[in-house]
Amino acid sequence: MKRHILLAGLACACVWAGPSASEQPPADCKPNVLNIPGAPYPCVYPDNRVTFRVVAPDAQKLRVRLGQGFDMSKETDGLWYVTTTPQVVGFHYYTLSIDGAVVADPATRTFFGSGFYNSAIEIPEPAADSDYYSLKDVPRGVVRQRWYQSKVTGNWRRAYIYTPPDYDTNTKAKYPVLYLLHGWGENEQGWHVQGHVDVIMDNLIAEKKAKPMIIVMDNLNTVKPGESAALYHARGAITQAVPEPPPPPGAAPAGRTGGPGRGGRGPMVSNVFTEMMLTDLIPMVERTYRAAPGRENRAMAGLSMGGAQTFGTALSNLDKFAYIGGFSGSGGGRGGFDPKTSNGGVFADAAAFNKKVKVLFLGIGSAEGPGTKTFSEQLTQAGIKNIYYQSPGTAHEWLTWRRCFKEFAPLLFRQVN
Amino acid sequence: MKRHILLAGLACACVWAGPSASEQPPADCKPNVLNIPGAPYPCVYPDNRVTFRVVAPDAQKLRVRLGQGFDMSKETDGLWYVTTTPQVVGFHYYTLSIDGAVVADPATRTFFGSGFYNSAIEIPEPAADSDYYSLKDVPRGVVRQRWYQSKVTGNWRRAYIYTPPDYDTNTKAKYPVLYLLHGWGENEQGWHVQGHVDVIMDNLIAEKKAKPMIIVMDNLNTVKPGESAALYHARGAITQAVPEPPPPPGAAPAGRTGGPGRGGRGPMVSNVFTEMMLTDLIPMVERTYRAAPGRENRAMAGLSMGGAQTFGTALSNLDKFAYIGGFSGSGGGRGGFDPKTSNGGVFADAAAFNKKVKVLFLGIGSAEGPGTKTFSEQLTQAGIKNIYYQSPGTAHEWLTWRRCFKEFAPLLFRQVN
Repeated sequence: MKRHILLAGLACACVWAGPSASEQPPADCKPNVLNIPGAPYPCVYPDNRVTFRVVAPDAQKLRVRLGQGFDMSKETDGLWYVTTTPQVVGFHYYTLSIDGAVVADPATRTFFGSGFYNSAIEIPEPAADSDYYSLKDVPRGVVRQRWYQSKVTGNWRRAYIYTPPDYDTNTKAKYPVLYLLHGWGENEQGWHVQGHVDVIMDNLIAEKKAKPMIIVMDNLNTVKPGESAALYHARGAITQAVPEPPPPPGAAPAGRTGGPGRGGRGPMVSNVFTEMMLTDLIPMVERTYRAAPGRENRAMAGLSMGGAQTFGTALSNLDKFAYIGGFSGSGGGRGGFDPKTSNGGVFADAAAFNKKVKVLFLGIGSAEGPGTKTFSEQLTQAGIKNIYYQSPGTAHEWLTWRRCFKEFAPLLFRQVN
Repeated sequence: MKRHILLAGLACACVWAGPSASEQPPADCKPNVLNIPGAPYPCVYPDNRVTFRVVAPDAQKLRVRLGQGFDMSKETDGLWYVTTTPQVVGFHYYTLSIDGAVVADPATRTFFGSGFYNSAIEIPEPAADSDYYSLKDVPRGVVRQRWYQSKVTGNWRRAYIYTPPDYDTNTKAKYPVLYLLHGWGENEQGWHVQGHVDVIMDNLIAEKKAKPMIIVMDNLNTVKPGESAALYHARGAITQAVPEPPPPPGAAPAGRTGGPGRGGRGPMVSNVFTEMMLTDLIPMVERTYRAAPGRENRAMAGLSMGGAQTFGTALSNLDKFAYIGGFSGSGGGRGGFDPKTSNGGVFADAAAFNKKVKVLFLGIGSAEGPGTKTFSEQLTQAGIKNIYYQSPGTAHEWLTWRRCFKEFAPLLFRQVN
């Protein structure tokens, strides 16, 4: 299958090559929606194959690193091409390897993942499936870039704050707040840039499927003065000439296809983040925005490492959060779960837990393995109410997390008086 | 000089190389502030030389393209290094050429300029000089990402809207509005990402040097349905294998060092942008934000091509704008200026013009040539009041434009009753 497809790709490339090397790709190969304006490549065929083209006149070996690698070939027009096998729908980070240098493709916008700015393609879904994250003519909220000072980290930090469509006009209203975290190697831009969380939320609110809320997106990577930002160092290795270490335990690489057993297993929880969040972030938000007070107006969720962080922070502070979500990451599922002792014994008294936690949500892509489902079943077995959602056909990637968010957001703040 | 510096750089590289290739640079070479977290290179010496390091094990030829090009050398640790000549202070886009492929350096954040995502270094100024664009403990406004529908272009457009620190609390106040444009090959993110306009404005407001205002940053590249985004195609060429054409007349490439005669000469003015702005953008802003009405509460400014656009739009619509600024771009200065006929004769009646236009501001970097100064003198000769500002020692780059903005903003909306 793969070989057949690759050959088909080369055949196409030969057809294009000729005196006019600026020819456009075949009409049925549509430019990736994440390309820079005017760039025809990479392009996506109706069957989800992707053709890449790169200008590298003196290079010896080019490879597209898109989950697996695809070697490129230099065609008669002097350009490098490859057509991949059909890709699954959704958002995929990728890089080029140019004679061993791993870099972004200049043809696309760049996205912070794995600790640096990657390229990306978006394999489109059928219109009906992507409707919930598509721009539509509905009232629209905004995403605000907010700088604030942190006493805990001793520096300026940047958060992005979504406010719902009526925030600026309904000036007496107070809104509940969701704190929403990115994954390993990503940053505070992930949810609105890669995840389209603002678009999803606007659409849900317009359909009255979710309550208007404030969403706070901050950076999980938090260190005290003098400490190094160790979580980033793995990918920083590409510019530092040290072997790229495996991701930290429980922190599946963002945007890579997750194998079985991925999904934020194991605790990679930053106590510094928790301290910063409780000391600096939440007070800043509640001082600056019209945030409704109290635990039943606060939710916390995150993806992958951000899911593990959510469980770490929120389960230790149930006086502050009543809604909890982990998307491909929860801190559970590794086995050895004991409701009496795990997570500091927070699950030991199921009735008390269920009374306090209004929603405990566990989401996962179906290609990510059984860990999260197992954890959900263990919780259910222990009498802990929880909601398990499985995204069909998706892996450890942003489409899983958009879908998780779409399922999770409507459950929030429904039980508040 | 250059050769001496290059040799010094190589000597340094040799010193670092050894069994541990992950060694950090010399203590006096400080990581570029625009690096991704944890990346030690590129780093900047006290004398403003920059050392770059790239991992490209199988490459034959590497070059840093930073204004001029600097060839890299593969050292005994297998990595590529170069140390440049001393660079001028401020923000500089750069790219790598890896065996002929022009790409961003994975070691830095990426910035949209020349139509794609470049790397960049920031050569720091002395603290006293950079104070005005440094994060300080003052009340802070926010930059809001705002999607809106355009009837003129038939699609969704994205603007960034700065609102001042008291906007959310002083809920009865209305604010004047500055429409602020980026340069060729850049986009609506340029002013707050590369330009730090929000930080500058917060600092000016805190010192009571500027009036609180809304700042609207939109994308200059505007086409009607079915038209192609031609302005981007020049740099898109890198991925399209056609020779990179020169920038359009009057549109100096963003971020490149401007030679004499640069500075937005010649009219590269989009009538579609003007139509979109008047039909869609201004009404959206005045419907959505607490914008004070009327021409004396509206200013327009831009850099390079955005300055030419500002002159094109505002001088044709003086019933809508009372404050006008061009930073390294104004549409004037080419010679052949005739106050009776140029710009549709808007300068013919100097007294009437001076009464209408409260501020006409022309800014330029001292390294950009005499065109803007000549234009200012021509205007003065014709009796047109204008303010000329020259940024010492800077070229066609963001430091010139940060400084222009710092000089321009305090002049705005002072004569409003």
